[in-house]
Order: sequence, then C-alpha cells, then structure tokens
Amino acid sequence: MGDYNPTVIRQIERVPKEVVEAFRDLSTPNVSDALERNRINGVMEGIKAMVQGVKMVGPAITVRYVPLSPAEQGTKEDIGDYLFEIAQPGDVIVIDNGGVTTYTCWGDILTFTAIKLGIAGTVIDGVFRDYDNILKMKYPIFAKGTLPRTGKDRLQIDGINVPVEVGGILVRPGDLIIGDDTGVLRVPKERAQEVLKDAKEVEEAERMIIESVKSGLTLREARQRYRYFQLQRAKT
Amino acid sequence: MGDYNPTVIRQIERVPKEVVEAFRDLSTPNVSDALERNRINGVMEGIKAMVQGVKMVGPAITVRYVPLSPAEQGTKEDIGDYLFEIAQPGDVIVIDNGGVTTYTCWGDILTFTAIKLGIAGTVIDGVFRDYDNILKMKYPIFAKGTLPRTGKDRLQIDGINVPVEVGGILVRPGDLIIGDDTGVLRVPKERAQEVLKDAKEVEEAERMIIESVKSGLTLREARQRYRYFQLQRAKT
Amino acid sequence: MGDYNPTVIRQIERVPKEVVEAFRDLSTPNVSDALERNRINGVMEGIKAMVQGVKMVGPAITVRYVPLSPAEQGTKEDIGDYLFEIAQPGDVIVIDNGGVTTYTCWGDILTFTAIKLGIAGTVIDGVFRDYDNILKMKYPIFAKGTLPRTGKDRLQIDGINVPVEVGGILVRPGDLIIGDDTGVLRVPKERAQEVLKDAKEVEEAERMIIESVKSGLTLREARQRYRYFQLQRAKT
Repeated sequence: MGDYNPTVIRQIERVPKEVVEAFRDLSTPNVSDALERNRINGVMEGIKAMVQGVKMVGPAITVRYVPLSPAEQGTKEDIGDYLFEIAQPGDVIVIDNGGVTTYTCWGDILTFTAIKLGIAGTVIDGVFRDYDNILKMKYPIFAKGTLPRTGKDRLQIDGINVPVEVGGILVRPGDLIIGDDTGVLRVPKERAQEVLKDAKEVEEAERMIIESVKSGLTLREARQRYRYFQLQRAKT
Repeated sequence: MGDYNPTVIRQIERVPKEVVEAFRDLSTPNVSDALERNRINGVMEGIKAMVQGVKMVGPAITVRYVPLSPAEQGTKEDIGDYLFEIAQPGDVIVIDNGGVTTYTCWGDILTFTAIKLGIAGTVIDGVFRDYDNILKMKYPIFAKGTLPRTGKDRLQIDGINVPVEVGGILVRPGDLIIGDDTGVLRVPKERAQEVLKDAKEVEEAERMIIESVKSGLTLREARQRYRYFQLQRAKT
Repeated sequence: MGDYNPTVIRQIERVPKEVVEAFRDLSTPNVSDALERNRINGVMEGIKAMVQGVKMVGPAITVRYVPLSPAEQGTKEDIGDYLFEIAQPGDVIVIDNGGVTTYTCWGDILTFTAIKLGIAGTVIDGVFRDYDNILKMKYPIFAKGTLPRTGKDRLQIDGINVPVEVGGILVRPGDLIIGDDTGVLRVPKERAQEVLKDAKEVEEAERMIIESVKSGLTLREARQRYRYFQLQRAKT
C-alpha cells in the first residue's frame, strides 16, 4: 500500500470579487480576444459545455486526481468530500482527471452539494455521471462527456489547490475561469484586471459593429470604423 | 455470390417482466455501481443518448450486421424487417454494426414500426438517420451519431438473437439493457435479481445522503453514515 | 511577407430557385438515397448540425481559408467581409477551413450579418464561436464544434467561389447544399433536377410505407409493395 499524502492547500488568493462580477457580461470569445492582446493562452480544448444556456464565472478551486493502483483499492474512502470545506461560494471547481473517459469523477451528489454551497460550476478534464439530474438542476458543467461508471476505488486525490492542467491549459488556484456555450477558458489571476479592460473594449466594439450593420453600413465599413482587428491584435 | 444463411433465433429467454419493471426507477450509475459490487462489467463506451430526457429499460433483442461485399450488392432485400416478427413489446433492439460510422442501420420507418409494436428503444454500435423525426417521436435511441447515408446494399444480417458486442460489451439475447442521459449498460439476465437488490441499496443510500446534506450534515459525514463506499465495493 | 492574391469569383451559376424550393420538403436521407441511385457521393462526414430543429437548403457560396504564416500576421485585415457583397439571399456559405479545430472562422457578427442578408445557413469544415448567440438566433449552422479562440491573424482567404472540400466532399460554387438534424450533403448543380425527381420518389414511397404499416401491413409487406429497395439502388 502506497503512501497517501495528497497536497491540500486551504488558503488561496482569489481574483477579487468585483473583477469576477465585471466579467459576468462578457462572453468567452470576448475574453479570448483580450487574452490574445495580452499574449496569454487560456482557451481549453476538448472540454464542452454539457448544459446549454448557462454562464459560469469564478475563481478556481483545483483538484488533481491520479489513478489508484489495484493494490490500493479499498484502502481509501476519500474522493475529496472535504473539497467542500475549502471551496467558497462563487468558486469554480476545476478537476484534472488526466482526460480519462473510462470512469467518472463527478455526479449528482457532488452537484447537489455544490449548488447548496453556492459553487459557480465545475470543469472536468474527464467525464461525469447522473447527467439527467444535472441537466434538471441546470448546473454549469464543462467536460469531455458522460458515462455511468464510478471513479471510486479507481482514483485518488493527488492534490487540492495545486496547479493542474485541464484542456491543455495550466490552471492555478484562484485563477479566473469563464465558461459559456462556446467553451471554457482561464484568465491568470494577476492579469485579470488588464484582460477585463481589453475584453470590455472588444465587447463594446462588437456591439457597435452590429448596431452599424443594423443601420446600414456594410460589415467591412463597420469593422474599419471600430478598429476591430487592432483590438484583437497583440499589443506591441 | 456468397451464401446467405443468417442465424435467426426466434425464441429467447428474457429477464422476467417484474424484474425489468423494478429497474425502471434506477439510474445507469446506480446499476453500474451494483454491477461493480458483483464484479460484472456492463457499461458501454462510446454510445451516447441521442434523445435527451428519456429512459429505456428492457430485455435485448440482438442484431448483428456485417458488410455486404460489392459482388453481393443488389442480391439482398432484407435488412431485418422480420426482426419485428421476433421482437415483443418492451424489448430493446441492440444492433452490432461493428462501430461503422460511414453508413446507417436505423431510421424513421424502423422507429415508427418499433413504436407501433411497443419496442422500448434501440442501441446501435454505429449511426442512424432521420434524426429530426426520431427527436420528434422522443424515441429512446443510443448510438455513436447520425449520418444521411443508407446502409442498404452495404450491410447484411449475420444473425438475430446471437451474442453481439456493442460499445465493448457482450450482449446476449434477453439480457437487460438500461439507458438514460448518462449512457447505456447491460445486466446479464441470470444476474439481474442480485444486481437489482444491490442497485436499490445504492439508490437508497444516495437518496439518504442527499437528505442528510439537506438537513445540515457535511457530505463526508453523510457518506460515512450510509456506508456509501462499502456499497460500491466488490463483494468478497 | 507573401503575396496575397486570393481568387475571388463574383458571378456564379446557381442551381435554379424553383429547384431549390422543390428540395425544401425532402430530408437529407431522401436526397442521399437519390444521390446513390445516380451514383453520386455527396454526404459530408464529421460535420454536425449544431442548432437542432432547423432545415437548410440553398446554392453554395464557397470560401477557402488557409493558415497565415507567423511572418504575415498583422498584415491582413480581411477575413472575407466582402463575402457578403457576393452572396445573395438564399445562398448557403460553405467554408473550407481544412478541418481545423484550434481556431474559429465564424461567429455572431457574421451570423447577424448573414441573417440580415437572408443567407440560408453556414457549413464549416472547422469550428465557430458565439454559440450561445447563434443558438438564440436559430441560425442553421453545421460544423465540427465550437471554441472561443479567434481565427483572426491565423487564417487568410485563399479563394471565394473556388472549388472547396468540406467533410470529404468537393463543393463547387452554385452546388445545392442541404442540411437537417441528420447531417449535411451536396447535390452537384447540373444533376439537381434528376436527383430531385428520384428523391421525391423515395420520399413518396417512404410515406406510403408508413401509411401501410399504420393500416396493418407488416414492414416487410409494405416495403415490397412500394419497391423500397429498388428505389434506393443505383440505376443501371
């Protein structure tokens, strides 16, 4: 039987609440463009919105699972329930299950508990179950898909609030996570203010372009007027 | 032109009707956990619920298709219509099309006929067509996806009510098939009673855990109280 | 910095409007069967209906994007806005982005503009963004998926109204494109009349088969009566 010493960090620095709130009206494409202006890569690949029509914004609580060896099965009864003693209302739970699609690491009991605690949503590099109930609860969940098979006795926690990799992106605890129907991305917490400013500029320009097209400009004219391409280009 | 002697077995032993009914209130995760307690693998991988919000439970009628050689095309006008002379109300049609995604083996005429005969649903290791009409009929269908291209003159029946492999799982005629939004699985017919008993225990424990969390226990406390992990562990 | 001379063809020959209209009541499976009778391959693979419950029929305006080399980034502010100076109401925009899934080539500004101009829908061998807004607009869009990341400064137009390849199918400007929940396909414009005739025969036979099953025939009897298999077989 191996040692079981998961790293658990209880106190983390989160992106400030007012910054989180300010991102709420921005889409993942708006924020993605702002990330590019700041030469930051944040877009997760292969992770889909599994409940349509919901928006998710909040600081990351991170979890890393690793496979349990056959010899260790039955020795651990902990799949991270105390995660909920660490997470705060508004947090997004970000789970690195190594992209595994053959067993799950999330279900309806965790969803029910998360909603009760005011958790903003869950992002999984892997799959989950109890999809019917989670759809009814309209809980924001982003993952690779669904499967009935449990992860219990198949995985163990390697760390809570350690840096994780999800959809090819490094996520550190407290980083800002944003998800909508298009996908999910991460904004590094110490860059959130400047990304916010740029994302608002993009959103404003896009809104003006649509207004201009409504009032008769061609799309090309409208884009030029609002310097759309410059807004999406990396700062020099 | 090759011989065409598909194996067709008309009389099969089905899991009893009252057992089928008793599974109706259990989810695929509940039953998956009960399968694990009994060291049975039954979860199909890569087969998705294609119509959301419907539940399917019933004994399997199995169909195995194999590709038709070019020389044989045009020589067979039989894609298993007499399947409907063999299937009974409540049965689930389980089609092994070898995971093929380049032509279909199911569509709206078969769906219409199936609904008329009271068939419970269809599971396909492959793809189907007429998705728009099937969505309107809210017919339970589990598959790899959809495509417009017919399988006629591309496939032939190799057997009806022979053992088939779907989503990596061996299915024998009469085995119990259960599907919901999370996925689809098989319970071997002669193990259905004991799996049912265990699945009910899992479902009951999960319900009690949610009630306990509602009334103020932490998730960890609630799981311990209802021996959640023991319930999901293989019997020794 | 490389040369930038995209091929732009403004005048194309379209499949006639009355033929387009006549296809509106036919499903992609109906038309796929008619294509097979005429030994034409037209079904796109790997391209999914991303907005459920909408139908799309119209002549293709084609766009081919190619990657922009790093040295060229920032030198082009043109992602095909003048596409909308070429497309006519009722056209389907068919985009060959080489199957790329790591950056997008379509979003809500283009969708808004397309709807304003009466464009019938968009088919993409690649991914798009602003999925939430596009879902609200119920715009017919067929693609490999969604992602927040822009294609700006990553792609350039190689040609408009040049032959393109989408989902494994060659599409020439003016070819008929048809999409529904099952998938999307192409009918070569100079074959549209004969494909239409055959597709109507298939549709009529399928309708009669369903009526016959409703009134008590077995499926096998109904199929034989309406020569279903012959209708789907290539003409000799």
